[in-house]
Amino acid sequence: MPIVELHLLEGYDRADKTRLGVALTDAVRLVVPAAPEAISVMIHERSAAQYMRGRVQQKPAPALPDPAVIVRRYLDAMEARSLGAAREFLGEGFVMLFPGAPAMHDLQELLDWSRLRYREVRKTYEAAEAFQGAGEAATVYMRGTLSGVWLDGTPFDAIRFIDRFEVAGGKIIKQEVWNDMAEVRP
Amino acid sequence: MPIVELHLLEGYDRADKTRLGVALTDAVRLVVPAAPEAISVMIHERSAAQYMRGRVQQKPAPALPDPAVIVRRYLDAMEARSLGAAREFLGEGFVMLFPGAPAMHDLQELLDWSRLRYREVRKTYEAAEAFQGAGEAATVYMRGTLSGVWLDGTPFDAIRFIDRFEVAGGKIIKQEVWNDMAEVRP
Amino acid sequence: MPIVELHLLEGYDRADKTRLGVALTDAVRLVVPAAPEAISVMIHERSAAQYMRGRVQQKPAPALPDPAVIVRRYLDAMEARSLGAAREFLGEGFVMLFPGAPAMHDLQELLDWSRLRYREVRKTYEAAEAFQGAGEAATVYMRGTLSGVWLDGTPFDAIRFIDRFEVAGGKIIKQEVWNDMAEVRP
Amino acid sequence: MPIVELHLLEGYDRADKTRLGVALTDAVRLVVPAAPEAISVMIHERSAAQYMRGRVQQKPAPALPDPAVIVRRYLDAMEARSLGAAREFLGEGFVMLFPGAPAMHDLQELLDWSRLRYREVRKTYEAAEAFQGAGEAATVYMRGTLSGVWLDGTPFDAIRFIDRFEVAGGKIIKQEVWNDMAEVRP
Amino acid sequence: MPIVELHLLEGYDRADKTRLGVALTDAVRLVVPAAPEAISVMIHERSAAQYMRGRVQQKPAPALPDPAVIVRRYLDAMEARSLGAAREFLGEGFVMLFPGAPAMHDLQELLDWSRLRYREVRKTYEAAEAFQGAGEAATVYMRGTLSGVWLDGTPFDAIRFIDRFEVAGGKIIKQEVWNDMAEVRP
Amino acid sequence: MPIVELHLLEGYDRADKTRLGVALTDAVRLVVPAAPEAISVMIHERSAAQYMRGRVQQKPAPALPDPAVIVRRYLDAMEARSLGAAREFLGEGFVMLFPGAPAMHDLQELLDWSRLRYREVRKTYEAAEAFQGAGEAATVYMRGTLSGVWLDGTPFDAIRFIDRFEVAGGKIIKQEVWNDMAEVRP
Repeated sequence: MPIVELHLLEGYDRADKTRLGVALTDAVRLVVPAAPEAISVMIHERSAAQYMRGRVQQKPAPALPDPAVIVRRYLDAMEARSLGAAREFLGEGFVMLFPGAPAMHDLQELLDWSRLRYREVRKTYEAAEAFQGAGEAATVYMRGTLSGVWLDGTPFDAIRFIDRFEVAGGKIIKQEVWNDMAEVRP
Repeated sequence: MPIVELHLLEGYDRADKTRLGVALTDAVRLVVPAAPEAISVMIHERSAAQYMRGRVQQKPAPALPDPAVIVRRYLDAMEARSLGAAREFLGEGFVMLFPGAPAMHDLQELLDWSRLRYREVRKTYEAAEAFQGAGEAATVYMRGTLSGVWLDGTPFDAIRFIDRFEVAGGKIIKQEVWNDMAEVRP
Repeated sequence: MPIVELHLLEGYDRADKTRLGVALTDAVRLVVPAAPEAISVMIHERSAAQYMRGRVQQKPAPALPDPAVIVRRYLDAMEARSLGAAREFLGEGFVMLFPGAPAMHDLQELLDWSRLRYREVRKTYEAAEAFQGAGEAATVYMRGTLSGVWLDGTPFDAIRFIDRFEVAGGKIIKQEVWNDMAEVRP
Repeated sequence: MPIVELHLLEGYDRADKTRLGVALTDAVRLVVPAAPEAISVMIHERSAAQYMRGRVQQKPAPALPDPAVIVRRYLDAMEARSLGAAREFLGEGFVMLFPGAPAMHDLQELLDWSRLRYREVRKTYEAAEAFQGAGEAATVYMRGTLSGVWLDGTPFDAIRFIDRFEVAGGKIIKQEVWNDMAEVRP
Repeated sequence: MPIVELHLLEGYDRADKTRLGVALTDAVRLVVPAAPEAISVMIHERSAAQYMRGRVQQKPAPALPDPAVIVRRYLDAMEARSLGAAREFLGEGFVMLFPGAPAMHDLQELLDWSRLRYREVRKTYEAAEAFQGAGEAATVYMRGTLSGVWLDGTPFDAIRFIDRFEVAGGKIIKQEVWNDMAEVRP
Repeated sequence: MPIVELHLLEGYDRADKTRLGVALTDAVRLVVPAAPEAISVMIHERSAAQYMRGRVQQKPAPALPDPAVIVRRYLDAMEARSLGAAREFLGEGFVMLFPGAPAMHDLQELLDWSRLRYREVRKTYEAAEAFQGAGEAATVYMRGTLSGVWLDGTPFDAIRFIDRFEVAGGKIIKQEVWNDMAEVRP
């Protein structure tokens, strides 16, 4: 104990169920100080004919993609300067908030602005965290360190950063960035 | 649908169950694109005599305190410069990582260091996020803006910050801070 | 088997649960040719803290009164010519459809009309049937025989009748009457 | 909430499950004033190997046919004067109670009797209601209006009728008829 | 996993539930090679109003006493030569089958017979085993060693024995005894 | 009622489920004086993707063989003097305890010893009982009567015996034998 039973319309694949099982286990662990080994999750799947709400049988909706995967693919596309590929991950009203920059909405805008800050940058990821909050969007945090080359050609390394993303309906709608670049900028 | 059933030993209060219900709902929403209104959570509570694991009846463990509340109380104590009260919230091996600072372990150390950066600082919170990850510790994010007075007496305001906390067994064991202070510092 | 489990917010009394258990048993029997003895119903009651829909705990609504009881009390009040008491059972838009009469809306109207048909009438009930249909209203059928005295003083007896009632929110909103009076009327 | 779980041996088709889901939803609605949208029904199907009663595995019984469908097919056969087809729907001990007629047991008997009342008759259906009562038989009500031609050649129309049927083991065993014919008969 | 849920009418005390939980765990272990720690048992108790079978609410029957306790008390009474107390544990048709003896039905008969075999005997119990079989009676095995004094005054010791009991409705109806006395008898 | 639900990883065949259903029914009957017909067992099987413990999906372990079948096959092989076949059923540390014999570990040892006791022996089985106890091993009791021929050529018959076996991991690790041979031995 605790034991979680999830009743679900069938149509979710193994990876979806894995994500559900992990998220439900961790939801319990936030409140109950049980070892993970003491927490079981059982998923009961119902066919469309086996579930009715409001006197009507229901259809399952396709699973939401893993928001941490969406974000990582977007960041990889950005690092590869594939703006077109990166834009595929962005939703309506996308906004970026970077340290020392105005709110930006377009990836080209970001590249133009960053060209005045450093010559190149690479991210080394230490951790990704994804969870669902009260609102529609899921939240993803990516943190780690930046390395690259300043405008004057000096290399830099091990600069802490954290990015916060909001992902709604499988699309990134907000990116917030904090880092220590200004602490160490020449 | 989805419908979540949680089987739990009795001994959790209404606030605990509310946190469990919300966390379980959001765990489902991370994967299934259902409106919150379509997600039900039922909590079934078992007395000690009604639950057995390994041929032995089990006792419930007290609920973990809400980590977001722990963190907020710690931050309030720090803002009030009540180091003694703040230290009550800290666990074994507590470490602080601030922009431009070495890893610090003691709150007095932090105050000494910050005295060289600004005369005073206040936090305005925009949001708190708490969730459980794979490890033992729960994660809490607090974000918002800083206002205060620089060492030269100039006021500052609306500086973005984000703090990340790890809370294990009800105690804060790690605080990581990112902010835009260096971007705007005179 | 079959076994029915009903999850309910607590707040329903034993009579409510009896009605639920009987109705659920009969719902199964409409489709599955099981002897009643083979059908079990278990009612699981949840406190407000144990149930959440849409991330919010829910409150139980008071049980609907038994529509067959409502109808019987109304008919008894009518037989006793207690129009005031009878009117307490009627809802907004109440309508009566009697054989050979226009649609009537007021009980006095009915009495006036019936005075032209018979001197007195009494109902002997053989059976009451109540069930919920697709719409909001529950349906109640009362059937049996009429006895009484014609306008000319002749007594009558054993005239078949059936009354159909719609009961919504605990109030009768429609009464439809069929009987064999015209077959035997002098 | 409420949430209904039905445990059933597998072997019922989608239409059977639809009827079960609707009947269970309405059973709840008879007592609990919940909107249909707030009522969920989950059907759990067990294979023969997954269910045991009395230390013995059990086999599912074929679903009962929808009694409203049985009754409608019977009435359609009667309207088409296909006595042979109509008789297929009748069970042992079938009895008919019509206004002003003795109890009849054979369809030819009914036709002979009706030939003295009207030249032809057609039914327009307004509603069918089917439910299971305490006894073995399911009850079906059909109501609407009659049109046709009197013996003297005068047409008639819009005469209210209601038929009550008892259906046991898929066969009609009783038909009770009430209508306003005598009110308007020339 | 496995997880066992037992739905029970309320009225069983903690010791009853402990016995149920242990017996259910062991029932699973007979087939599934799971460590006891991996097997959970949850007992759901229903009030009389929360359970209906055959459209009728049911009452719980008092728990059967632990047959191993019944047997041990009987054996203790016999060892103390309290025939009256021992007889309280015996049911209708009680029969004893001892090595080399005819079937006996009365405890005095047993004492008379044993007087010809040994002067005194004491049982040292190594183990008791109780379980329910297909029939109405529960089975209890007691095994261990006998010590005592032969008719000629020689002591004996460490003679293996096993007793098998059938307990129905809380009363012992059969006692079968095997031992190695004849192997070592002088 | 009582109703038992068993949640199991899929991978068990019909015979396994039959044994589980019977054992769970009897576990309940040991405490609750319900007729077998009043006890239902439902087995819910989960695929590997539908069950998670400790944030990790689990695999089912193969069912343990029926220990009563293991024991019977071993006894049949012994009666046929097929020592090789019989040895296949024995586990590490196998020990035999026979009346009047030292603890024996090898089947040849048993045959050599028995050759000094009787010329031949056959078992007639009256009953087999198998159940799981607290320890790892399942217990099997076989009882009935022995017939055969003494060393002097005299036949014997109807000698009561009981054998107790411990079966762990599908292998017999202990055989204890009691019988009345010494009572009647010439």
